[in-house]
Amino acid sequence: MRETEHEAEPGKRPLGVGMVGYAFMGAAHSQGWRTVGRVFDLPLQPVLSAVCGRDGAAVRAAADRLGWASAETDWRALVARDDIDLIDICTPGDSHAEIAIAALDAGKHVLCEKPLANTVEEAEAMVEAAERARARGQVAMVGFNYRRVPALALARQMVADGRLGTLRHVRLSYLQDWLVDPAFPLTWRLRKDRAGSGALGDLGAHIVDLAQYLVGEPVAGVSALTETFVRERPLLDGASSGLTAEGGTATGQVTVDDAAVFTGRFPSGALASFEATRFAAGRKNALRLELNGSDGSLAFDLERLNELSFHDHTEPATSSGFRRILVTEPGHPYLEAWWPPGHGLGYEHTFVHQARDLLHAIATDAQPEPSFAAGLSVQRVLAAVEESAEKNSVYTPVASTPVTV
Amino acid sequence: MRETEHEAEPGKRPLGVGMVGYAFMGAAHSQGWRTVGRVFDLPLQPVLSAVCGRDGAAVRAAADRLGWASAETDWRALVARDDIDLIDICTPGDSHAEIAIAALDAGKHVLCEKPLANTVEEAEAMVEAAERARARGQVAMVGFNYRRVPALALARQMVADGRLGTLRHVRLSYLQDWLVDPAFPLTWRLRKDRAGSGALGDLGAHIVDLAQYLVGEPVAGVSALTETFVRERPLLDGASSGLTAEGGTATGQVTVDDAAVFTGRFPSGALASFEATRFAAGRKNALRLELNGSDGSLAFDLERLNELSFHDHTEPATSSGFRRILVTEPGHPYLEAWWPPGHGLGYEHTFVHQARDLLHAIATDAQPEPSFAAGLSVQRVLAAVEESAEKNSVYTPVASTPVTV
Amino acid sequence: MRETEHEAEPGKRPLGVGMVGYAFMGAAHSQGWRTVGRVFDLPLQPVLSAVCGRDGAAVRAAADRLGWASAETDWRALVARDDIDLIDICTPGDSHAEIAIAALDAGKHVLCEKPLANTVEEAEAMVEAAERARARGQVAMVGFNYRRVPALALARQMVADGRLGTLRHVRLSYLQDWLVDPAFPLTWRLRKDRAGSGALGDLGAHIVDLAQYLVGEPVAGVSALTETFVRERPLLDGASSGLTAEGGTATGQVTVDDAAVFTGRFPSGALASFEATRFAAGRKNALRLELNGSDGSLAFDLERLNELSFHDHTEPATSSGFRRILVTEPGHPYLEAWWPPGHGLGYEHTFVHQARDLLHAIATDAQPEPSFAAGLSVQRVLAAVEESAEKNSVYTPVASTPVTV
Amino acid sequence: MRETEHEAEPGKRPLGVGMVGYAFMGAAHSQGWRTVGRVFDLPLQPVLSAVCGRDGAAVRAAADRLGWASAETDWRALVARDDIDLIDICTPGDSHAEIAIAALDAGKHVLCEKPLANTVEEAEAMVEAAERARARGQVAMVGFNYRRVPALALARQMVADGRLGTLRHVRLSYLQDWLVDPAFPLTWRLRKDRAGSGALGDLGAHIVDLAQYLVGEPVAGVSALTETFVRERPLLDGASSGLTAEGGTATGQVTVDDAAVFTGRFPSGALASFEATRFAAGRKNALRLELNGSDGSLAFDLERLNELSFHDHTEPATSSGFRRILVTEPGHPYLEAWWPPGHGLGYEHTFVHQARDLLHAIATDAQPEPSFAAGLSVQRVLAAVEESAEKNSVYTPVASTPVTV
Repeated sequence: MRETEHEAEPGKRPLGVGMVGYAFMGAAHSQGWRTVGRVFDLPLQPVLSAVCGRDGAAVRAAADRLGWASAETDWRALVARDDIDLIDICTPGDSHAEIAIAALDAGKHVLCEKPLANTVEEAEAMVEAAERARARGQVAMVGFNYRRVPALALARQMVADGRLGTLRHVRLSYLQDWLVDPAFPLTWRLRKDRAGSGALGDLGAHIVDLAQYLVGEPVAGVSALTETFVRERPLLDGASSGLTAEGGTATGQVTVDDAAVFTGRFPSGALASFEATRFAAGRKNALRLELNGSDGSLAFDLERLNELSFHDHTEPATSSGFRRILVTEPGHPYLEAWWPPGHGLGYEHTFVHQARDLLHAIATDAQPEPSFAAGLSVQRVLAAVEESAEKNSVYTPVASTPVTV
Repeated sequence: MRETEHEAEPGKRPLGVGMVGYAFMGAAHSQGWRTVGRVFDLPLQPVLSAVCGRDGAAVRAAADRLGWASAETDWRALVARDDIDLIDICTPGDSHAEIAIAALDAGKHVLCEKPLANTVEEAEAMVEAAERARARGQVAMVGFNYRRVPALALARQMVADGRLGTLRHVRLSYLQDWLVDPAFPLTWRLRKDRAGSGALGDLGAHIVDLAQYLVGEPVAGVSALTETFVRERPLLDGASSGLTAEGGTATGQVTVDDAAVFTGRFPSGALASFEATRFAAGRKNALRLELNGSDGSLAFDLERLNELSFHDHTEPATSSGFRRILVTEPGHPYLEAWWPPGHGLGYEHTFVHQARDLLHAIATDAQPEPSFAAGLSVQRVLAAVEESAEKNSVYTPVASTPVTV
Repeated sequence: MRETEHEAEPGKRPLGVGMVGYAFMGAAHSQGWRTVGRVFDLPLQPVLSAVCGRDGAAVRAAADRLGWASAETDWRALVARDDIDLIDICTPGDSHAEIAIAALDAGKHVLCEKPLANTVEEAEAMVEAAERARARGQVAMVGFNYRRVPALALARQMVADGRLGTLRHVRLSYLQDWLVDPAFPLTWRLRKDRAGSGALGDLGAHIVDLAQYLVGEPVAGVSALTETFVRERPLLDGASSGLTAEGGTATGQVTVDDAAVFTGRFPSGALASFEATRFAAGRKNALRLELNGSDGSLAFDLERLNELSFHDHTEPATSSGFRRILVTEPGHPYLEAWWPPGHGLGYEHTFVHQARDLLHAIATDAQPEPSFAAGLSVQRVLAAVEESAEKNSVYTPVASTPVTV
Repeated sequence: MRETEHEAEPGKRPLGVGMVGYAFMGAAHSQGWRTVGRVFDLPLQPVLSAVCGRDGAAVRAAADRLGWASAETDWRALVARDDIDLIDICTPGDSHAEIAIAALDAGKHVLCEKPLANTVEEAEAMVEAAERARARGQVAMVGFNYRRVPALALARQMVADGRLGTLRHVRLSYLQDWLVDPAFPLTWRLRKDRAGSGALGDLGAHIVDLAQYLVGEPVAGVSALTETFVRERPLLDGASSGLTAEGGTATGQVTVDDAAVFTGRFPSGALASFEATRFAAGRKNALRLELNGSDGSLAFDLERLNELSFHDHTEPATSSGFRRILVTEPGHPYLEAWWPPGHGLGYEHTFVHQARDLLHAIATDAQPEPSFAAGLSVQRVLAAVEESAEKNSVYTPVASTPVTV
């Protein structure tokens, strides 16, 4: 078979990667692993050792296509392999906890796609496993890839540098529209047993993580409404891939939310509003955020991911205004390795940056961010959202009991 | 003294207008009354008969400046004048009910600035007075001027025409930043006894009215957070005008909200989110709204008031997208009377359009919209917001008991 | 008849205005004259004394509608009236020179719509008349109203303050689309004998004036292409108004350009490009400009006239970018008199500002800008454009021989 | 050494690629070759056989970094290798002709970076070599990668489908700002002997090619101005990479243009304007274009490369406007293989698409576009621009004599 990307650069310590799952997220992660060493100077050389999936023929085809040296059909076999140092989990949320805990307990580093888990309990167990493993020198990271959009990494820097002063408003929405058509079938993402929740866990998890990352604080409490606009959909004929699929004539119940709208507070006093939906016709991937502080404001839209909008409120009123920073300068986060100014990056580059940062963390024995604890923190906010939605939207504090290890 | 605009065009029935208050809103209404007959064909000729304010010298100067034929220092005297057919109330909210009810009872038509009143009780009394007066052939209207932004009138048409299908999401925010500076003084707008509430009644009233206008339904219930970020401010030195003022060294309590964030539901199932704030640094007058339906979406920002953004979800995905309609075509609402395409209008034109529609209603003995009942409906939503905010954000249905007359 | 706006405010010297022409431009100028004293503190009180047009009934109706105290059917009679101090010329270009010179020679101040004239020779004669009149204390001004868009006045300030450093590129286009439809009829604007030229004189004149105003230098030379895309159009049935009209079945020759594209140089070294067209489908009034200098850049689009885009090239690359200045702050040009920040102005306000500046110039016996000499300077550029277009686009220096008086 | 990407997928015919040059363009091409088979279904498997450069250590490091199986220091040796089927030329323009002709004559397929050559004569010789090679079953392609931006491929489809009707205006500019600072050193791109020309050949070549591609016709003639704003710059200390470099204290002459502004005509009657500059402060990679036709218009900006703006002029005026098509739908060009809607692509993806289309052409023995003849056609326009600029901007027809073979 074709050998690709699976031998280390001379003089660099190799790091064997085994990936579970090879659909949308698996393809994106593969692109990250393949590319990272071609662009960034790395302390470790990732080797795409094996990809794992239940269907033997399909996973072998995926290995060939995506550049993995071998294929496995049982994730336990993958975890048991000596040539594999890191398990990259790209499966639906219902299997995250089991795989991640087993991998950590087997001595592997772990990268786990978001959301960390389908329940707080699972997430807590994962954090415990990660902390045990950390004591042994392993690391665990959750794949909130949007932290690695250069514009958002820059936004975090600007907040941390005090460019916004005291934050007053934190406003995030993640709007998609792929469920507007009631004929769209009942894929796994619409089943609570597989996905945990709907727009909330899929899209809401991203904006809750980003809010906490950018503000530098956990959400203190929330008040929420959720809704399922289309409650019955055609059952799926055969396999679905990514966000497109076709359905048959039989129908089944949608058991997750189509949309979640919630407000909240941060400990330091800022008000927050969140909206996650798959029913915003015309919005394809509109993760939009705005931060308003006493000294400045930021705005961002993932549909224009190379841009960050910044208003400096300390400037004279007659010459101030939101400026569009094209986040493609060599001095911007991650950009030292890419193209000249103005030659924009795309969605998949977040996975290259994620791989880069994880490899540096492993090489320096540092805890990569976002940690499983950060993933748990998001999970707790999602749980509070669901609780508030069930309790007539009453303001629901987010649990913050420290995890016992 | 200079005679201006106060004699009727030959062959047209004159309508004497008496305005109470001459600050920011009074100046805007004056511009509306002066201009409407120069641009639109009117069934009645408005005559700027008198303006009223407590300070005699100041009100006489305002009359000269703004084009009113005479000045009064007592609104009761104004209401008593035979040459005045319509009372235009541009005072702070605490005097709306008393003046409006007296004027209606005296047989005058009434235009009352928004919000209709400072409490639901006042608003209910006003609606009763308006209904009694309506039976006598008088009309009463509340000044939610943004309904007369051509782009928003067009938006209403498009929703009513079914271009959006079933509405799923209604998202409005009204963001300003004039309170970001903690040195901004304690003007009447920051005192509950004068203004009733803060961002909620001032900005929130606009977006609640627009939401109900555009959707064509009242809000069913809300869940809310409010906040006062800066609780003490310098007391005012002398007079303030409009939204700018200077303060002294003594300070006083801010007794209204700086910001209100709330979610809600419409009877037909759409989810709503609202945000009103004076603390969004860099946003000057950002009344922004988005509607997402099963067949299309709309977006608008008052900072670009000549534009309406429309996505037609029934078009092929490969050629669809949000289009920027420049709402300056002769076929657009109100535009038949103005300039050629692309020659944009401004904020003040909403008051010209408001005057036009009110005059047509009077001439045809029709109820103008928004009626006092519409104003009361907004007031009830604001009351529900305050109640929810006090009750830990619990979802609070909006009262809908019909007004008894 | 209705008396309006035609008596002076007490204590203020009145200035009688007589306007010739009452179509699109006449309506816009009327709005300016009526409104200016209601908004700005003026040293003189404009009185709308008389409007003039050849059709007696029509001009009387226009006087009533637009607020003029009387009507005249012969401009010579208007010029002869003692109660008129200023002649405001809003006719097509072929009559500008005759009326303006007669008015100046009769001792009146003159405001003349752009373009100043249909030929350089006429414009030269007008400048001579203006200079003679200036010696007698009269003033003459040409109506390049876009200089009074607040964003463009701010742009001029920023260039003059050195915020852009040395200018390298000056890029202006004025794009409209009302001739795209070949069925649009042959109005006066499409006849060389009336309009002088097509897009060039109508739209090109504006951008040439703005370029010279913003740069602070005359254009040194040009190289040009012009084109008439639709050479035959239906003859006009009856009257046309503004930019809309309907045609019959007979057709006639279009004798002006539909579009002009030209490049040029400024004496200080900047390269310029210009484009004027009525064939840019979807662009309604897109007067767009960009200036690039060694220290910064500006960008503007008249379709968003309340905004100026500014890039400060002296800032760190990682936080710089084009900022959108909402030109509605009290400190911005003309804005001290209008509404709070973010409450935008429209097209017609340029005429209010023009009236304000002209009245101040008259009151202080100062030369208002743009002078007839500035109008002549534009005319010479337009002539050079036409000459270059006839001579195979060869670079054609703009004549700069000083006018002899 | 590390083996990467240089063995074929089982069952697929391998195609050995040898690349000359490994700076900015070499890195971008490498990313294309490495990724194309991971994303697209290919008829041939590209194998990254060897990269070539004069500095042995540097080229070996580049091979390791960029994923090439071996390194060569003499392009003639590369061309002579049996395992190499395609030569990919990523060197400065002065060596394109020699390498390309030798490679074609040696029986290799050739991909040559733009501009095709530094002179028309060289380009003609290259076309002749390509035509000789074509007869033997080889193909030659020039690397105008922007044709493979999905939004621009879509634009071409829409023009070809008649969505724009008869074209009236074609307006392109390519604005960068990396030479604004006079301390930027004299890299090879500023030396006529290496680069042929400055902004004209580097940026102007792209927009001329795109104009001809989108319109579907060659430019008929041009009228041009060029300028070198900063004529002396620091000599380069050591190596430069990409568009960033540092200079020393000695200076040298800039022998190319900093900017070129030109107008033109298309045979079918459309007017064109072009601008290429490296002096537009704040514009990083602003390749912007607009097409206006009788039935619609398009607009595009490379700084927002996932978007195409389209105005459909056949729609009712009241609901039409420029729509922002997010070119990320599965039905859009190249998008079937990438991410879900709204998950944008970046600059480098154009090279993946270029590789894909070239491989399909080779596999089906079809002529890939843009051919060397297309590259020559651009070269002739550039030559006409230079001729016009030297001849006082006189309109200069573009030579169209067919190449003799």
